[in-house]
Amino acid sequence: MTIVYWEDARATLSCIGGWHRLRIQLGDLCMPVIRGDDIREAKRSGKVGVIFGFQNCSPIEGDLELVQVFHELGVRIMQLTYNNQSLIGAGRYEKMDAGTSRFGREVIREMNRVGMIVDLSRSAEHTSLQAIELSERPVANTHANPASFHAALRNKFDDLLRALALSGSMLGFSLYPFHLRDSGQCTLESFCRIVVDTAELMSIDHIGLGSNMCRGWGYETLEWMRSGRWTFGPDYGEGSADKPTRPEQPPWFRTPADMPNITRGLLDRGLDTQEVGKILGGNWLRFFSEGFESNAARTTGGGSEK
Amino acid sequence: MTIVYWEDARATLSCIGGWHRLRIQLGDLCMPVIRGDDIREAKRSGKVGVIFGFQNCSPIEGDLELVQVFHELGVRIMQLTYNNQSLIGAGRYEKMDAGTSRFGREVIREMNRVGMIVDLSRSAEHTSLQAIELSERPVANTHANPASFHAALRNKFDDLLRALALSGSMLGFSLYPFHLRDSGQCTLESFCRIVVDTAELMSIDHIGLGSNMCRGWGYETLEWMRSGRWTFGPDYGEGSADKPTRPEQPPWFRTPADMPNITRGLLDRGLDTQEVGKILGGNWLRFFSEGFESNAARTTGGGSEK
Repeated sequence: MTIVYWEDARATLSCIGGWHRLRIQLGDLCMPVIRGDDIREAKRSGKVGVIFGFQNCSPIEGDLELVQVFHELGVRIMQLTYNNQSLIGAGRYEKMDAGTSRFGREVIREMNRVGMIVDLSRSAEHTSLQAIELSERPVANTHANPASFHAALRNKFDDLLRALALSGSMLGFSLYPFHLRDSGQCTLESFCRIVVDTAELMSIDHIGLGSNMCRGWGYETLEWMRSGRWTFGPDYGEGSADKPTRPEQPPWFRTPADMPNITRGLLDRGLDTQEVGKILGGNWLRFFSEGFESNAARTTGGGSEK
Repeated sequence: MTIVYWEDARATLSCIGGWHRLRIQLGDLCMPVIRGDDIREAKRSGKVGVIFGFQNCSPIEGDLELVQVFHELGVRIMQLTYNNQSLIGAGRYEKMDAGTSRFGREVIREMNRVGMIVDLSRSAEHTSLQAIELSERPVANTHANPASFHAALRNKFDDLLRALALSGSMLGFSLYPFHLRDSGQCTLESFCRIVVDTAELMSIDHIGLGSNMCRGWGYETLEWMRSGRWTFGPDYGEGSADKPTRPEQPPWFRTPADMPNITRGLLDRGLDTQEVGKILGGNWLRFFSEGFESNAARTTGGGSEK
């Protein structure tokens, strides 16, 4: 779950507080996921397990110590950049990309230490490749598709996908229409074919879903995601002035309840149930279980660092 | 006067408040400079005129609207970067330099509009050259010397000095030992020679002094300037592990009261009193008087935009 796009440290505290409040209001519907076992517990008890993630590094401002502070508040994954240049590296919408900054190298090391996963979904290519090299632990590209599937600015070239696989990292396939071939007209067959093709490129163990599902949000939220406070003018992101709003989801993936369609689609393309299980959640479960542990806990064979 | 190095918006408000408090405590010693006429008034009344400046863009965070907010609070000049990558561009200590970011281009336009001077003193070369091009108004490199004088990382190559001159911008010569040939052993003659040589390169109308004078500060302040909160390890900036502290000022420039030494040195090198007057303050007076006006005030022929 995305906690912030552009918020600074103080505003982020309120965002986290807001999600706590919502969870209480919703009663038994959700539970926070702090470690891998929480995912298993959510599954067992029929709840929605919620992982806190940042789509930008704006919450840590220029302060290296805030990585651990937000980790203690439950944040388990952070994108190094949103669309623009961040203090860490270049976002995918920048024309130029100088890679990771001096601060960025410190942040990646600190994220490795505390057990906060590096997410490259919105980062530019050179920044991403450098981050994979710098990170001593696998990283994730939680929601972006292969550029060979659809040439969206945010989709990823094969060299990056190979680097992800070689480092034991994960790719999450996006179901956001802007990232799909033929947008909302993308067929289930077409989507499942790129999943299978990518399994051949990256191995079946390094792919999963990162739906980018947005429901019940108005245009104001989309405007905040695109323009934040960094520009006065409208910025249409992946849209355009004549098509500013989000396109419709494909008919076979309109809500999380449509997930079985993807299971069926992958089985239809010849994968067996074990393979589909990896893509539908098994790989993320393994990856998150390892990634959420602090380096100290990993090297001493488990236990909490606190 | 430097208000901040790494502070965010909230902390900057307290820094500004702290300077107000200090000014009140000091009675009639200082007065704030909000427009060019205030410099003349300070001179006339024998006070120290104080111009608020940021050495980093950290106070505006990612928020374009904060440019005008801080302008209203009296801030008249802002460096696009401190040593590191900022949200606007690359600092001089970064290995790579991708130039100005999407946000950076918006910020420069907004600084132009409200009348906040763009300062490139700590910016990397490509970022600086782009900023000069993007800015519709002259910019400043308030405190850095020609690299031909001393090959400090922060000193500037001739191509940048020429671009400054061509755009009507200013170079302020630094008297900070790290920027001087032979550091604290730099002779007055050597310093004045580079000033005269640079007058030939840039014209006598585009140079002045930017002393970078620091007095009464302990090592803690130097550590904050260098490391902020972006790294846990020590960063020695222009120093080194075996020479972490600031070197001694040259004997002919230990306090602002030594300014007449520079006047004498420049006269000794053959400049006339009018030329020395430009370098010792005349050029800055003209440049600041124009630069502190909003674009609206300039195009309507004066007056306050408020």
